[in-house]
Amino acid sequence: MRKVYIVGAGMTPFGKFPDRPYYNLGKQAALEAIKDAAIDHRQIQAGFVGNVMAGMVPGQKVFKELGMTGMQIVNVENACSSGATAVNLGYWAVASGQYDAVMAVGTENLTGNRSGGTALAPDPDDIEGVQGAVMPGIYAMRARRYMEEYGITPEDLALVAVKNHKHASLNPYAQFRNLVTVEEVLASRMIAEPFTLLQCCPVADGAAAVVLCSEEKMRELGAKGVQINASILVSGKYKTEPGDMTVPEISERASRLAYSMAGLGPEDINLVECHDAFTIAEILYYEVLGFCGRGEGVGLLRSGAVELGGKVVFSPRGGLMCMGHPLGATGVAQIVEAVWQLRGEAGARQVQGAKVAMTHVTGGGVSGMDNAACGVHILTV
Amino acid sequence: MRKVYIVGAGMTPFGKFPDRPYYNLGKQAALEAIKDAAIDHRQIQAGFVGNVMAGMVPGQKVFKELGMTGMQIVNVENACSSGATAVNLGYWAVASGQYDAVMAVGTENLTGNRSGGTALAPDPDDIEGVQGAVMPGIYAMRARRYMEEYGITPEDLALVAVKNHKHASLNPYAQFRNLVTVEEVLASRMIAEPFTLLQCCPVADGAAAVVLCSEEKMRELGAKGVQINASILVSGKYKTEPGDMTVPEISERASRLAYSMAGLGPEDINLVECHDAFTIAEILYYEVLGFCGRGEGVGLLRSGAVELGGKVVFSPRGGLMCMGHPLGATGVAQIVEAVWQLRGEAGARQVQGAKVAMTHVTGGGVSGMDNAACGVHILTV
Repeated sequence: MRKVYIVGAGMTPFGKFPDRPYYNLGKQAALEAIKDAAIDHRQIQAGFVGNVMAGMVPGQKVFKELGMTGMQIVNVENACSSGATAVNLGYWAVASGQYDAVMAVGTENLTGNRSGGTALAPDPDDIEGVQGAVMPGIYAMRARRYMEEYGITPEDLALVAVKNHKHASLNPYAQFRNLVTVEEVLASRMIAEPFTLLQCCPVADGAAAVVLCSEEKMRELGAKGVQINASILVSGKYKTEPGDMTVPEISERASRLAYSMAGLGPEDINLVECHDAFTIAEILYYEVLGFCGRGEGVGLLRSGAVELGGKVVFSPRGGLMCMGHPLGATGVAQIVEAVWQLRGEAGARQVQGAKVAMTHVTGGGVSGMDNAACGVHILTV
Repeated sequence: MRKVYIVGAGMTPFGKFPDRPYYNLGKQAALEAIKDAAIDHRQIQAGFVGNVMAGMVPGQKVFKELGMTGMQIVNVENACSSGATAVNLGYWAVASGQYDAVMAVGTENLTGNRSGGTALAPDPDDIEGVQGAVMPGIYAMRARRYMEEYGITPEDLALVAVKNHKHASLNPYAQFRNLVTVEEVLASRMIAEPFTLLQCCPVADGAAAVVLCSEEKMRELGAKGVQINASILVSGKYKTEPGDMTVPEISERASRLAYSMAGLGPEDINLVECHDAFTIAEILYYEVLGFCGRGEGVGLLRSGAVELGGKVVFSPRGGLMCMGHPLGATGVAQIVEAVWQLRGEAGARQVQGAKVAMTHVTGGGVSGMDNAACGVHILTV
C-alpha cells in the first residue's frame, strides 16, 4: 500500500445556521481545502462524503456547487462516525493506487434540515432505544457506574467541560467560546443525571473537508502534507453481556488497531481529538485509548496533562463539547484540526511541537449501546 | 490490482412486505449468499451496505442479525445506484488487497419504512424537482422527445413491458409474474404521459447480497466464482445545457469506462440487466450502452434480439419493471441475477450459454436530471 497524505484542509465555523443548507456549508469547506492544497480541482478523482440527515445524494449536491462533476462520488453514513468513514474510504482509495487524489467531506445541517432526511427518533423496533437508551441515557448510566466504582464526583465531571471551554475560547471555529466555571457547569439545567446541560455536546451545523493524495502527487504539488499513518474503522460487537460499560470496547479495539497500523503508541501522541459527547466520555477515553490506567482518568485530568501545555492535549479545539456535533462533519473536522495543529497553524490553541495526533469518533445506537461504528486516525508530520 | 470473484449470491423475492424490516430482508439475503459461498462467516472481513431510506447504521443492523460483528461496515447511499456502489467499494477493497473476503448487501423496505429515514419528496431547494421534474416526468419528457424524433409509437414503448413481463413470468423472485399484452399496457391508467401504469417500475421491498473474494480465497474455498471484470461508478455532469436528453450521457460514459476496464465490448455481452425504470429507458439504454445505433432501439426490440433466445437478452429477470425497485437493493439484485445466469442456474429464464453479463443502474435527481450516480458492472465466467 502507498503512503497517503493530507495536502489540504478546510472547514466552516461550527454553529447554528438554519438558513445554510448542508451543501452550502460543504461547498465552503471543500473550496477551502482545495485552495489550501493549491490543487487544480480537476485533479481530484473521487469524492467521499459523510452525512447522516440530508437525504439522497448529498455529495453530488456539494460537488455540483463547485462544478466538480462526473467523478466517482460515494455518500457514506455511519452515524457519528460518518465523517471518519469518508476519510477512511478516501485513505484506502489512494493507498491502494485506485486514485492519486481524492477528497473527503463531512457536512451536516441539523438545525435547518429541509431535505426530508433521516429523523433522529429511535427506530420503533429498537426496544432499548424507545425505552430511553438513547445517547444521553447510555452515557449517564456509564457515568453513574464509574462514579460508583471510582468515587469520582460531579465536580470531577464538570472539569472536562471547564477545560474544553478554555480550549474553545481560543478557537474561532468553535460554537461556544465562553469560559465556564465548575459551579456554572453544575448549575446548568439537568439533562440526564448526572449530566447538566453544559456536560452534553450541543447541536450544530457545519462542514469540513480534506484533500488526500499519494506521495508522488504531493511532490508534484510541491506540498508538505500531513501523513495518515493509521485509518481504522470497526463496528461494535453487540454482546448480550456487554461486560464493563465503563470500558467502551469498540474504542479500545479501534485504538489498538490504529497503534498497530501506525507502529506508534500512546506515548508518541501529542494531541487527541476524541468523541467527548458527554463529560464522562472524555474521562473514559483517556483510559481506553491507553493514556492512563483504569480509574485514573480524573487524576490525569486534574494533573493538567490533557490541557494546553500538558503532555497529551485532549480536545484542543474544544472538542464536541464546545464545537457542537454536526454528525457527518465531526470526524472530518477533527482531522482538519489535527492537520492545522501538526502544521503549527492552530494559533492561540497551538499544541507546541505537535508531531503526532490522534482522532477518535464513535457512535450509532444499536441495542442500547453506542457502538455501531468507531473511526480512529493517527496523523504525523 | 487483484482479480475479484463473486463466490456467493443470495436474494429475497421482491414484493410488498410492509411487516418485514429492511434488516430482516437483508439478513435473509446475506445468509443465502454466505450459504451459497460455503464460507465461514468469520472469514468475511468487511461489509458494504447499500440503502437509501432506513436511517442510521442499516448495515450494522443487518449484520448484527447474523452475529457478524466487529468488522468494518460502511453504509452507502447513491440513490438508485446505492447497491452498485456497495459492490463497487467491495470490489476495490478486495482488488487492492485490503481484504480477502467481503460482502456487499443492498436492502430496502419502501412500503413499511418505520425507521424515520429519508423521505422521497424533492428537496424544497430543488426548484426543478418541486416543479415536477421528478423521475416519471423526466423520463416522460425523454419519451416524448424520442417519439417526436424517431416516430415511434405508444405501442413500441408498451412492447418493453410486454417482453419484461414475459421474462418475469419465469422468475420466482419477481413481484409481477403475469403476462400482459400491448393493449393491457396501454389501457392501464395514465401516470405521466406517455407512460401508463404498466410502463413504470413499481415500488418494492427486498434485499440482495454477494460475497466477494480474491482468487486465492476462492481456491481456498474450492469455489468456482464469477469474475468481476469491470466495476465503474461515476456521477453526472449537470451541464447547464444537457445536450440531447434522449442520450443519457452518464450511462454512455459509465458503460464505455466499463468496456475499457474489462477489455470487452457490447458484442461480447450475452445479457444485460439495465435500469428499465420506465419503458423508454430500456430503449434508450439499448442505444447508449452500445447495442445498436441512435434511433434503432425499437428495431432491436422488435427483432427479438433482446428477449430470451435472442443475441443479447435485456432484463432476463423481468427488470425493474416487474421486480420492482427497492432502491438500495436493485444494484445488488441485478448482480445476483447475473451470477445465477453465468452459473447456468437461472431455471426457466436461463440465457443459454451465457458467459458475459452487464448490469447497469442510474439515478438520483439533481437539477431535473436523473444522473447523480451510475454504476456499471461486467461479469464473466
